[in-house]
Amino acid sequence: MELFQSTAKNIKILFNIPDEFYIFFLGSATECMDRIIQNLVFKNSFHLINGAFSQRIYNISNELHKKPLYKKVEFGKSFDFNKVTIPQQTELISIVQNETSTGVSINEKDIKKIKERYPDKLLAVDVVSSVPYVKLDYKYVDCSFFSVQKGFGLPAGLAVLIANKSCIDKSIYISKKKSGRIGSYHNFLKLYENAQKFQTTETPNTLGIFLLNKVTEQLLSYGIGKIRKETDEKAKMLYGYFDNCNFAKPLVKNPADRSKTVIVIQSDIKKKIKDILKKNGIIVSDGYEKNKSNQIRIGNFPQHSIDDIKKIIRILQTKIK
Amino acid sequence: MELFQSTAKNIKILFNIPDEFYIFFLGSATECMDRIIQNLVFKNSFHLINGAFSQRIYNISNELHKKPLYKKVEFGKSFDFNKVTIPQQTELISIVQNETSTGVSINEKDIKKIKERYPDKLLAVDVVSSVPYVKLDYKYVDCSFFSVQKGFGLPAGLAVLIANKSCIDKSIYISKKKSGRIGSYHNFLKLYENAQKFQTTETPNTLGIFLLNKVTEQLLSYGIGKIRKETDEKAKMLYGYFDNCNFAKPLVKNPADRSKTVIVIQSDIKKKIKDILKKNGIIVSDGYEKNKSNQIRIGNFPQHSIDDIKKIIRILQTKIK
Repeated sequence: MELFQSTAKNIKILFNIPDEFYIFFLGSATECMDRIIQNLVFKNSFHLINGAFSQRIYNISNELHKKPLYKKVEFGKSFDFNKVTIPQQTELISIVQNETSTGVSINEKDIKKIKERYPDKLLAVDVVSSVPYVKLDYKYVDCSFFSVQKGFGLPAGLAVLIANKSCIDKSIYISKKKSGRIGSYHNFLKLYENAQKFQTTETPNTLGIFLLNKVTEQLLSYGIGKIRKETDEKAKMLYGYFDNCNFAKPLVKNPADRSKTVIVIQSDIKKKIKDILKKNGIIVSDGYEKNKSNQIRIGNFPQHSIDDIKKIIRILQTKIK
Repeated sequence: MELFQSTAKNIKILFNIPDEFYIFFLGSATECMDRIIQNLVFKNSFHLINGAFSQRIYNISNELHKKPLYKKVEFGKSFDFNKVTIPQQTELISIVQNETSTGVSINEKDIKKIKERYPDKLLAVDVVSSVPYVKLDYKYVDCSFFSVQKGFGLPAGLAVLIANKSCIDKSIYISKKKSGRIGSYHNFLKLYENAQKFQTTETPNTLGIFLLNKVTEQLLSYGIGKIRKETDEKAKMLYGYFDNCNFAKPLVKNPADRSKTVIVIQSDIKKKIKDILKKNGIIVSDGYEKNKSNQIRIGNFPQHSIDDIKKIIRILQTKIK
């Protein structure tokens, strides 16, 4: 209970989360998607789809027998937020703030504007690969979630779900409807009831929570402002290099849509790039699913130093002609 | 994928599990209960209830809007298996082979007999606190599950679900029914589809799987027969001592019902016993929930040596008059 309380407190300070939010510990970001749909949607969710993960939560809504609606754009692009209109029957709006599959990021201001335009709809924001960099204004978000193996550099098997009282109320509402189904394991009512006592609903990944406690402590002492500044700096170096590179280019063309934490690069000599980096001690990810053969994804997280980024650029500059 | 394959193989060898079973990795035993009900029960499950955990899976069945039936006995006792009759409409029989809350164990032969009498019903067996000691005959079991923080001595946050093709077929059957609901996250069809490629449905607790791989490897090399023999020996020492102790007695009166791995002791001076053991470097568990004040539970797992058990007995013999 002490570990739960202390870790939840660290997360709230780190992300400037208001008191009236609850912190829940789940198993994975995919599990968070499932719980959000099951507990916050009676019939209609609405999804902004521009990559594999925004597609995944839409699919989950379908699999849970909801009637999800969506606006879809080409993967690698973002939305024109002035033109996005959300159907009236929507109960929950799902936004993936940082698409891990494509490296497209949605500006926090656009998320705020959506909530201002649709204040009566719940808003769920996936920040899996943008924490701790992303700076959401929780006054305009009802729930968000992330797993710990990306920006926190921890072993996988733990996710954090952040939800306000409106989410709990919606879950209560659904549970009381005759055909309402909020599930049993990790339903919001159980999570909420236990979280108030700083307890989990099952014997949790205690080691994972312990490690998250230590890493959030470290980030708080280092300073989240400094982390954000360095992330910007490193992203600028990477995009600057690849914009002028003759054998590899950023997938996301519009600089405003470019993720600072997941930099996706397209190249005909992708395999060569990955191999040369690996030979020099740098491991980057493949492109997601069907883009495995022609894209790489570079994580730009707190655990990656400015020197790491300089090294990537130096290797590519000197080893590939 | 290599880690999944190798760990699943170790588990199958260790427990003599036939080829036609699948190994799935989940987050907790509580999650396993939820998935089993959701994927194997369209309407009616049947539960043998004699403790908090057999009660828990019954409650989950209710929460998932099934119509669970049950046979309940006093907590601390077991069932008269010759007299247990299971209602005709039962789709799934749920048995907790080793009740962690009370230290009551059900003989593997009684489990076999139940399946022989009701071959057309699926049988799910909770072996959370009896692995790796328990010796189920998987010809008479359709699925079983355990978490790794008890008999495997590992950090919590990982559970193993073992299921045969009949379970997958039942899940397919339910998913095709108009009002059938098998869920999305960790439903059996996704688990099955992924497990065939030695993959998980989400980024899993890889560290946990890695550690389980190492521990199962170690157990295989040490010999499961030796583990079982030592467990019997240690249990005999503990029950022998407490049967003749004048300030503490085993909760389970019938020797045939006594768990070899979770030894529950009742005493009016429970706090004193726990404190003296702790002062001497031995930590035992409290009784479960309402029995916190008058029971202790002693784990008898492979990580506990014969010397540990001797030490417990010696401390109590010499320090409590």
